[in-house]
Amino acid sequence: MTDLDASPRAAAPTRVQAGPAHPTPGARTAHRPLAGPGAALTGGLLHDWQQRNREASLPLALRQLEVAGNLDNMRAAAAIRKGGDGQGSTTGAEYHGPVFMDSDIYKTLEAIGWELARDPGGAGGDSWRALASFADGAIGLLEQAQLDDGYLDSYIQVSGEPRYGRLASSHEMYCAGHLIQAAVAMARTARSGQPGHEELAGRLLAVAQRVADHLVATFAGQEKGLDGHPEIETALAELYRATGQRAYLDLARQFVDQRGHGLAGDHHGHGQRYLQDRLPIRDTLTEEGHAVRAMYLEAGVVDVAVETGDRPLLESSIARWEDMVATKTYLTGGNGSRHSHESFGDRFELPPDRAYNETCAAIASFHWSWRLLLATGEARYADLMERLLYNAFGASISTDGQRFFYVNPLQRRYDHFEGDDPGRRHEWFSCACCPPNIMRLLASLQFYLASTAGDTLFVHQFTGATVQAPLAGGVLKLTMTADLPWSGRVTARVDQAPDGRCGLALRIPSWSTGTEIRVNGEPASADPDEHGYLVIDRDWASGDEVTAEFGVTARWVYPDPVIDSVRGCAAIERGPLVYCLEQADQPERADLAHLAIPGAPPLRERRADLPGIGATVVIDTDAVHHTAPAPGHWPYRPAPGDPGAGERVAVTAVPYFQWDNRDGRPMRVWIPQVPSATR
Amino acid sequence: MTDLDASPRAAAPTRVQAGPAHPTPGARTAHRPLAGPGAALTGGLLHDWQQRNREASLPLALRQLEVAGNLDNMRAAAAIRKGGDGQGSTTGAEYHGPVFMDSDIYKTLEAIGWELARDPGGAGGDSWRALASFADGAIGLLEQAQLDDGYLDSYIQVSGEPRYGRLASSHEMYCAGHLIQAAVAMARTARSGQPGHEELAGRLLAVAQRVADHLVATFAGQEKGLDGHPEIETALAELYRATGQRAYLDLARQFVDQRGHGLAGDHHGHGQRYLQDRLPIRDTLTEEGHAVRAMYLEAGVVDVAVETGDRPLLESSIARWEDMVATKTYLTGGNGSRHSHESFGDRFELPPDRAYNETCAAIASFHWSWRLLLATGEARYADLMERLLYNAFGASISTDGQRFFYVNPLQRRYDHFEGDDPGRRHEWFSCACCPPNIMRLLASLQFYLASTAGDTLFVHQFTGATVQAPLAGGVLKLTMTADLPWSGRVTARVDQAPDGRCGLALRIPSWSTGTEIRVNGEPASADPDEHGYLVIDRDWASGDEVTAEFGVTARWVYPDPVIDSVRGCAAIERGPLVYCLEQADQPERADLAHLAIPGAPPLRERRADLPGIGATVVIDTDAVHHTAPAPGHWPYRPAPGDPGAGERVAVTAVPYFQWDNRDGRPMRVWIPQVPSATR
Repeated sequence: MTDLDASPRAAAPTRVQAGPAHPTPGARTAHRPLAGPGAALTGGLLHDWQQRNREASLPLALRQLEVAGNLDNMRAAAAIRKGGDGQGSTTGAEYHGPVFMDSDIYKTLEAIGWELARDPGGAGGDSWRALASFADGAIGLLEQAQLDDGYLDSYIQVSGEPRYGRLASSHEMYCAGHLIQAAVAMARTARSGQPGHEELAGRLLAVAQRVADHLVATFAGQEKGLDGHPEIETALAELYRATGQRAYLDLARQFVDQRGHGLAGDHHGHGQRYLQDRLPIRDTLTEEGHAVRAMYLEAGVVDVAVETGDRPLLESSIARWEDMVATKTYLTGGNGSRHSHESFGDRFELPPDRAYNETCAAIASFHWSWRLLLATGEARYADLMERLLYNAFGASISTDGQRFFYVNPLQRRYDHFEGDDPGRRHEWFSCACCPPNIMRLLASLQFYLASTAGDTLFVHQFTGATVQAPLAGGVLKLTMTADLPWSGRVTARVDQAPDGRCGLALRIPSWSTGTEIRVNGEPASADPDEHGYLVIDRDWASGDEVTAEFGVTARWVYPDPVIDSVRGCAAIERGPLVYCLEQADQPERADLAHLAIPGAPPLRERRADLPGIGATVVIDTDAVHHTAPAPGHWPYRPAPGDPGAGERVAVTAVPYFQWDNRDGRPMRVWIPQVPSATR
Repeated sequence: MTDLDASPRAAAPTRVQAGPAHPTPGARTAHRPLAGPGAALTGGLLHDWQQRNREASLPLALRQLEVAGNLDNMRAAAAIRKGGDGQGSTTGAEYHGPVFMDSDIYKTLEAIGWELARDPGGAGGDSWRALASFADGAIGLLEQAQLDDGYLDSYIQVSGEPRYGRLASSHEMYCAGHLIQAAVAMARTARSGQPGHEELAGRLLAVAQRVADHLVATFAGQEKGLDGHPEIETALAELYRATGQRAYLDLARQFVDQRGHGLAGDHHGHGQRYLQDRLPIRDTLTEEGHAVRAMYLEAGVVDVAVETGDRPLLESSIARWEDMVATKTYLTGGNGSRHSHESFGDRFELPPDRAYNETCAAIASFHWSWRLLLATGEARYADLMERLLYNAFGASISTDGQRFFYVNPLQRRYDHFEGDDPGRRHEWFSCACCPPNIMRLLASLQFYLASTAGDTLFVHQFTGATVQAPLAGGVLKLTMTADLPWSGRVTARVDQAPDGRCGLALRIPSWSTGTEIRVNGEPASADPDEHGYLVIDRDWASGDEVTAEFGVTARWVYPDPVIDSVRGCAAIERGPLVYCLEQADQPERADLAHLAIPGAPPLRERRADLPGIGATVVIDTDAVHHTAPAPGHWPYRPAPGDPGAGERVAVTAVPYFQWDNRDGRPMRVWIPQVPSATR
């Protein structure tokens, strides 16, 4: 047991070393993530989300890992190990849940890793101590369950199934990957200065390295198979980054290169596309199969590419990202058009109602895009990350942080059911991959705000934060004030500056409807460079202030005509937010199934405080309500319907990320337009 | 073994007694199906389909039942029975395929049952003998495999699983139902006059009755569970009709009434909706869950309702049919909006690309609608049957009768894949429910052409056929000549008439763009009655001739604005046919993903003979081809796209039922319209 009894040092300096995806100095990246103290969220929506995550969501995870049996599985594995050969249930212990239950523990540990370094938490460190104590117990269990040769997987150890016998489905390396990521997170934040933190990190890293060493010993240079669910690739690359052990990177590269030769086997007849095993990754032109698997693999692909200087590999990933963004991505940034096999669909198959948009896919896309942002320094990746954050990802969590979406559609009709499920958020899932994944991302959010390139600090996301970046001439330290997504005003005050000139670069968001930049009150150009940033290069002094006013005027957006499923519709955006109509906000007679907007009616914004939602900005506009077809009526006719013939009604849109916090009634992002002939 | 060696009597009179769904005289139905010699297809598309079914498709089924292992499963069950207690594999025999493999044998036997009565076939009866010989062998296997208490299910008998231990998934009663239906078909056609036929029928009916008796002994008056896949309900009602044994009808009613109380259990967590077990059937307002299961159940519901005079039960089925037609049915007549769980979607969830529209669902809807047509005498059911026949169902078979669709979407994009499957027709499937289902429907098609009510013969479907109906005053015998769907001209010549007045009623198809009726050359009213029929009541004489000219002018049809997925689109219909654009017919530059039609351009029809398709009527029209979005371009914009800005191209539509007989390139039924502002 680690000594966690001493009170956390409330005023201890945050000495974070690095966040997720931290390339080695030799990696071929255009940007470097912040190292050292880095960034911290201090106010605004992202800060509030991070706090809610710690105060409401993480405690729920700790409880659920007990209730759902994840920890019992590990206890059973430990008991079996203690009792004998370590594998095969001779104790009568029963395994609970799907084969990848361990990964929920690991994602939670990763979240805890980031949290432990953040701040000691309120009430004299109670929350810090609760998290650290859980980590201490869980790590203790892992130590007890891990076999002598380093193997660790509670499902295999309890069930007695042969190791690596059905890698297409067993998720053994997927779980190992999440364990490794948790260990890397804990190791990168170990010097928080909090008592016991460094020891915890050391213990977890030891477990993870023994697992990784076992994988190297078993798979390096072999063609024994690939895990059906990618994740180990990026995890091994990160472990290489954290430990310097080249064998981990080599194995990650091997797994990336082995993909596409049928080594992954088959998962319940879902085929090779499902497992990204149809074509070598370098020959793959479009994302296909299971969306989360595909994008977890991409994270590993980029990690391997930048660490090995493999430009063609990186370029293949960029090409697939471009294809995905142009042809397989929803307005919310989400991916995965099919419930069947939780998969990407064909190009331009983007049904709003049947959108799968798994929360984990949004997280995977966020992780992949961050890696491409570092690799290339291009703002388009930060654009997508912001879109994901405030929409596809943001919507996955209820206002109270206690319920989660697994699937994130852009439309819900009356009486919606998927099997027997009405499609509302759940507290937990029998396949609970999403909630702890949400938690690890929110706990590490500050690492994605900024990066550096040479003598320039690039700010990608605007929110209340402090940012501290080591540039060539010294440290540049900023205090950023912003109320995004509600307002477009951002202030960055220089608290400390290096000697001589250096650059401060602001991403000009693609959504800004008009940008004004001032430096110490003086207007400056707001034209971004070819990478999408406005770079202000000068001799900065403490007290300098840059203000940006990004235009967040609400606007109508329209789909390309090639997208069949939302033809003839428009959606509302404001700043980085996608909006939606929820039945809860409409007058009784304005049934969402029978509304249409005439032309592009004016959008009237107002601040509001809605029950179940809290503070928000709603948008009022005008619509027409037409009548439903008569019951029993054949719904295909010799003349087009005339939705413009109905009654005018005022309707109200709310941010998509805030939907489903009232009742379970319909929602739609895409609003039909009255055909112009009948306006 | 039955003596099948004697040559079939080529000129033997067809003495069919009854077809599928033949209510008892006491049943509460508005119409009666034809009894006695009934109808025969003599020319036209339906006749050609029936011939192709016998000559190309059925031989393929006989081969596949051997290749896929269905017959081996039954042989294994027979061997085990011979060897010992009849259950539990002590012979080392292995079971092949899904648990319901027996049902493929039974559906094929049902098809053979109808075929054996139809005609002796070409080449001196070779085809008749091949079918009869297969039936003889297969029935022999069933006799050998059936256990002493009447139980028969090769999966349970070979696997050794307990009987009825997991009814949600085991399909034991589903298979029994298909066995019963095969036996009923064989029994109803036994007096074909062909040598050996009656003996075969007797043997199969004996096997089926022993199975049914076993079910009665096991389940009657009990609450032991329900089969997850409805089918036994209609089968038992039909067996009651064929044998007069009331216990079968009682058990059918029991199973119908027991539905909705959680007795069906759960199939892999799909929930109660999936198995139609959420609500009692009388309280169910809309079709939900697995589409085929839902509609097979409806067939049983109507059978039980009319045989027991249960008007509220019938009315609940009618209400669901109306709801389904208005809110959950595709233009092709197909049902099933979701690949997930092969299920109905929410109301108005009708994606053309992701339409599941299982072929078996089209068959189920056809069977259900026929029962409602008999129950009510309303033409709307015949309308849907015709739509299903020529579209959702017709498309499931390749031109050569050798390949089949399981899923029937209304759109296919470039590079389409579902798992690793490119979505083309297959010769057979690992779950091969559809091909033999197609075969049993095609073999019995003539039974759905006409029915009687009192002194009136109702003709529902128009095609080359002879129809012979016993009316109160005697037999009315017609020869019908028609070239539907290509032409709208129908001639019905009276070959024999009863004494005194009687009615000849023609359904006025809902698609007819203008109807002219002549009786012996004299114009007559073409106004249908409230049930949708034109009833011509007169003293008919041999040689009388009624001609109908139904308008088959090609036309544009439009979806109700409440259907989101095809908003802003139009489709082409001609007569009962839905048309589609296939890439194969368009000029090189006219990419289906980027076509739009300006307004409602003229539709120019022409007869054509296309490679891979054969004789057809194609429709040429005008479209605009616009450019694709640039690669990597975010596809949501501040201004609507302008698909009207492209180049004009002529495009060609083909009947939907003939699609996918050339290459695997894109297809679409719904064609985007240029928004009127940009026309």
